[in-house]
Amino acid sequence: MVDTGLIEKICSKDKLAISRTITKIELANSNSIEILKELHKKTGKSYRIGITGPPGAGKSSLTNQLTKLYRKKGFTVGIIAVDPTSPFTGGALLGDRVRMSEIGNDAGVFIRSMATRGSLGGLSSKTQDAADVLDAAGFDFIIFETVGVGQSELDIVKIADTTIVVLVPESGDSIQAMKAGLMEIADIFVLNKSDRPGADNVMTSLKTMIYLKDHTTEDWLPAIIKTIAPENIGIDELAGEIDKHKNFLTANNLFEKKRSEHSKLRVKEIVEELIKDELWNTKRLIELESEIKKVVAGKYSPYQIAEDLINNYKNSLTD
Amino acid sequence: MVDTGLIEKICSKDKLAISRTITKIELANSNSIEILKELHKKTGKSYRIGITGPPGAGKSSLTNQLTKLYRKKGFTVGIIAVDPTSPFTGGALLGDRVRMSEIGNDAGVFIRSMATRGSLGGLSSKTQDAADVLDAAGFDFIIFETVGVGQSELDIVKIADTTIVVLVPESGDSIQAMKAGLMEIADIFVLNKSDRPGADNVMTSLKTMIYLKDHTTEDWLPAIIKTIAPENIGIDELAGEIDKHKNFLTANNLFEKKRSEHSKLRVKEIVEELIKDELWNTKRLIELESEIKKVVAGKYSPYQIAEDLINNYKNSLTD
Repeated sequence: MVDTGLIEKICSKDKLAISRTITKIELANSNSIEILKELHKKTGKSYRIGITGPPGAGKSSLTNQLTKLYRKKGFTVGIIAVDPTSPFTGGALLGDRVRMSEIGNDAGVFIRSMATRGSLGGLSSKTQDAADVLDAAGFDFIIFETVGVGQSELDIVKIADTTIVVLVPESGDSIQAMKAGLMEIADIFVLNKSDRPGADNVMTSLKTMIYLKDHTTEDWLPAIIKTIAPENIGIDELAGEIDKHKNFLTANNLFEKKRSEHSKLRVKEIVEELIKDELWNTKRLIELESEIKKVVAGKYSPYQIAEDLINNYKNSLTD
Repeated sequence: MVDTGLIEKICSKDKLAISRTITKIELANSNSIEILKELHKKTGKSYRIGITGPPGAGKSSLTNQLTKLYRKKGFTVGIIAVDPTSPFTGGALLGDRVRMSEIGNDAGVFIRSMATRGSLGGLSSKTQDAADVLDAAGFDFIIFETVGVGQSELDIVKIADTTIVVLVPESGDSIQAMKAGLMEIADIFVLNKSDRPGADNVMTSLKTMIYLKDHTTEDWLPAIIKTIAPENIGIDELAGEIDKHKNFLTANNLFEKKRSEHSKLRVKEIVEELIKDELWNTKRLIELESEIKKVVAGKYSPYQIAEDLINNYKNSLTD
């Protein structure tokens, strides 16, 4: 049973209720799915912005300025800072005491850091669950902020309506390497710290990349917005460009299509995660452990063991 | 039924038979699992080396020189060049006509490029299948070569006995960003093109990283080998260091342990892939497609649709 009081509190932007619910989601508390089912009915109104880029590009600072601008315009903002921790090292949450003191006490702003140890699947699934909580709570904008190291920046396009890739003049070298991935995910490029040396080179590289890309006149081509976040330079232009992209999606019936693609990926992920949880119970993990020696010794093929485990799983369902 | 003639041909290093079998694996030909089960019995003798690093670090050139050295010493070498194509762009196979003309005609060398569109899971699973074919064929060394862009370099540690991370003097900037990931996966660092400016800085950064890492006196600490691959400088030292790492693993009973961990991950991946194939049949994908509108409209929760699909799957098993 879902506590209707909790749902009401969330929908009135009670930060404690929101925070506790997201914690339940992170811990995969059994009750969280039931809460999410209830909350989902209240969702669909928030616009979801993804902000990604290399470490040190100034994503947090940019998020803060954008948030302050939206607040001035009367909008509410939920921020989910995703820390795609290396599956090997653990690592710390995105620390941002500065941010908390700047905008954290505003009743119209909710900030949450989420770590994603282990699976990438976990990243987008739990992040989207948390976004649904914020959506139900009625935040006008949800900003996902994630360090782009590898796969994570590709994951952000699966959850954001508008994806912003933040670069700095020093990113010149990396652009070549990240080229394909970046080009495909960016709806908007931000060149932050654009007063530093090298800015012109990066602008030229980006422009070349954008215009060399196969496109028709109907396609959205990412703009490049120059910003200096701490001085609040370029933030108005960025908000304007986000708005432009949003209108482009709506005018071309792409918004619904995008959301539908995202939802499909999400449902698939949920299905697969739920089945995996059931599949890899303690009993079956012990079975795997005990059979694996035969594989290493070359006696059994991994496929043989895999088939045995699958049969075992299927039999358990029909018992 | 598996063609025993095919198995015999593979085990006598018949390149055409090996190549066709790997193609069957790539295409997920239904017969390929049966072939792999047979071949697995013949495996366990090859030593598996992973070579990863940023684009342009000279991985192919290094692989070629290492291969030539091993051939001189009388060993046979199988090379699997993995192209972790962006899931968005498609992209080309690692082109290496130079390589083919240099070492491709040697009967003791087999070279194969594998593209991995889409899932990362696909990368390690099919790569390992191909490695099993080469192992059964009796190649002494199997070298996996993969561009380290994001998650792929983390995947290589799941399949290699010794993982080599190749950097160049120009990698200075990236090292900081990749720090955690790199440190955890490298058994050996190679600083290639080490005659270029910046080499000393990269050496210093790497050494600092290595010594700052938590370690006990029993731990393996990665060496840094300076190479200039086209001039064959440092290749002997690299081969020596690979040998040293191999002996370290064996002397500390870590080899068996590593192989066992790799096999476990592999079996899990196979189980999950086989279940996914069965789960996401055309019928269920159509069902997902037709229900998704209700999710976007906020009428149904993704969890509700997910549960319906799981029940549908389970019921199909008991029919």
